[in-house]
Amino acid sequence: MKNYFSSNFKLGVLGGGQLGRMLLTETQKFDIYTVILDGNADAPCAQICNEFHQGDLLDYDTVYNFGKQVDLLTIEIENVNIDALDALEAEGLTIFPKPKNLRTIQNKAHQKVFYHDNNIPTADFSRFTSLEELKHAISNEAVSFPFVWKSARFGYDGNGVKIVRAISDLENLPTGECISEKLVPFKNELAVIVARNASGETKTYPVVEMEFHPEANQVEYVICPARIEDAVAKKAREVALKVADAFDFVGLLAVEMFQTENDEILVNEAAPRTHNSGHYSIEASYTSQFEQHLRSILNLPLGNTNSKVAGIMVNLVGAEGYTGDVVYENIEEILKIDGVTPHIYGKKTTKPFRKMGHVTIVNEDINEARKVAQQVKETIKVIAK
Amino acid sequence: MKNYFSSNFKLGVLGGGQLGRMLLTETQKFDIYTVILDGNADAPCAQICNEFHQGDLLDYDTVYNFGKQVDLLTIEIENVNIDALDALEAEGLTIFPKPKNLRTIQNKAHQKVFYHDNNIPTADFSRFTSLEELKHAISNEAVSFPFVWKSARFGYDGNGVKIVRAISDLENLPTGECISEKLVPFKNELAVIVARNASGETKTYPVVEMEFHPEANQVEYVICPARIEDAVAKKAREVALKVADAFDFVGLLAVEMFQTENDEILVNEAAPRTHNSGHYSIEASYTSQFEQHLRSILNLPLGNTNSKVAGIMVNLVGAEGYTGDVVYENIEEILKIDGVTPHIYGKKTTKPFRKMGHVTIVNEDINEARKVAQQVKETIKVIAK
Repeated sequence: MKNYFSSNFKLGVLGGGQLGRMLLTETQKFDIYTVILDGNADAPCAQICNEFHQGDLLDYDTVYNFGKQVDLLTIEIENVNIDALDALEAEGLTIFPKPKNLRTIQNKAHQKVFYHDNNIPTADFSRFTSLEELKHAISNEAVSFPFVWKSARFGYDGNGVKIVRAISDLENLPTGECISEKLVPFKNELAVIVARNASGETKTYPVVEMEFHPEANQVEYVICPARIEDAVAKKAREVALKVADAFDFVGLLAVEMFQTENDEILVNEAAPRTHNSGHYSIEASYTSQFEQHLRSILNLPLGNTNSKVAGIMVNLVGAEGYTGDVVYENIEEILKIDGVTPHIYGKKTTKPFRKMGHVTIVNEDINEARKVAQQVKETIKVIAK
Repeated sequence: MKNYFSSNFKLGVLGGGQLGRMLLTETQKFDIYTVILDGNADAPCAQICNEFHQGDLLDYDTVYNFGKQVDLLTIEIENVNIDALDALEAEGLTIFPKPKNLRTIQNKAHQKVFYHDNNIPTADFSRFTSLEELKHAISNEAVSFPFVWKSARFGYDGNGVKIVRAISDLENLPTGECISEKLVPFKNELAVIVARNASGETKTYPVVEMEFHPEANQVEYVICPARIEDAVAKKAREVALKVADAFDFVGLLAVEMFQTENDEILVNEAAPRTHNSGHYSIEASYTSQFEQHLRSILNLPLGNTNSKVAGIMVNLVGAEGYTGDVVYENIEEILKIDGVTPHIYGKKTTKPFRKMGHVTIVNEDINEARKVAQQVKETIKVIAK
């Protein structure tokens, strides 16, 4: 085994956002020289990695030339030029997660087909090469309301997803490749992070629960462990592991799932990287998801995924009505509360709903953590000067 | 209160070694722009801080000019030019810990006098302006064997300290200012880290115990919590707090103490900064000592000093007989064990006894952690290629 801790080994990372920034804490801890590519000169990683390169992650030459300078390549964002990764891999560069997995996951239609082909439970769906084709299917009664429209490409954080109850809901949507998915009523939205290394060792983190705002239909809290029955949690971890094994995945795979009203587990989608639903792990787990990502891509033994204490995460997103130089209003107030840790991503300007940071709340008692989380949410506000 | 999280505030740090490196994890988490001065261009912080300046920490002009570029100045090593700090402070720069505290602590004779003047329990001692003066005192029977010789200046990690049982033990010692200290038999060597902010808010971390190798008389394990009676632990925390209050200290103060055979607590010495005895806190505590240092110097509310789980730290020092490009032999083996986290400081070359990193072992059960710590110690070895 290569001794990554005592060499001139260079880890390349595509993307220099907040996920990369939190990964840097771990590369620094292990003294792994880290080179980062991002399109933005002010990216959260720019000043604190060993080497920063500015360039377009979707440009073939940029990604290819960057890859030629490193010993192992990973990603913190999946929207990168995969043709370049294929070429680099063919020339012998180790890339985790594997380019073929990224290609499947980048396209939601391909992802759904993959689940179907591998007997992974997921909501029924149909594929369309364009929005126009979907409209034809509706007029032919091949698709009936209500359903969920999903863009095949470049959706994130609720972008590219819409519940369609009438033909008018399709107005102003992107016109490209898409799927229609059966609208399944669910009790809970859950997620499980799977770590898998090149030797095939796998570990799953505990199931987390996304708690939604009762009116706004927006995730407010990510809660670990999920407040669900043990049998449901066990099933969710098994399904997540099955997804990772089916992909022959190497790295971290965050599997988002629905717990239906009948306690079925249906895979919604997967992200081939560290994930917002795992941020709680920095403070709550024996091994943070970022350290685990390193362990998995370097083919090191995986760390303990258990929690020391219960953890809840609240995203810090830009408040509506504020754009400009960011101010974290009342951050000193939340620092007064035991077990509260803000993470500030280093983005200088805020705009409505931009992810600017997160706050983790840990406590031995999950109910106490939940109370504190609400207090945090009601206190801190991301505004502009 | 200044909003450090949303400004162009610049934190200056004197020293860019491993303590600075671990502090950077926290300045990155809080997005605090950090500028570091160190004499070594390859210092552990050099590549991963926002701005690195190379220069002599003991040179007046270098320290003064560095200080003029920052909004708040702190240290990660106490051997810096204090005249420059006095000048900067007089011109209005906020410096924590305070230069006057650094001046007292830099000189072990002054430190001992300070404890004496403030009724802080410490072993009896005498001061000498030179080794020659100490020799005279011995010949006049004003000092009798055995005693502990300590150099007043620049001692660290056992350098500058020697048990003297005969006049010949004084051969080859530095000739400068020194003290003789009564040799007190002790049961345990303990340490308590105190955090104190500018508003006077104070918190103490739990008492840690330094477990020595039975033969080599070298600290092998730092154990939190110390395996001592509650009454002794309470007394140790009270004494440490008294030291911090007497200094009117701002920042982190690590107070090393002896538990005598009569369960007295005697202060050995204090370090005005984050400390090796607090490294366990990164994995084991609700608030790591490095985050707490930031909270205290920025006059933020202090964090919870309690532990989530028991923690033990093992130093990774260069093995005898090896000098050159470092190799961490068997590091993959220790990564297989649950709750084991190596920290590699980023020093490229090893030499005998050089601090190259540390390993933290956490477990709900301290006895289990102690077993694992021994396994770690017997497995990993810092050698050269």
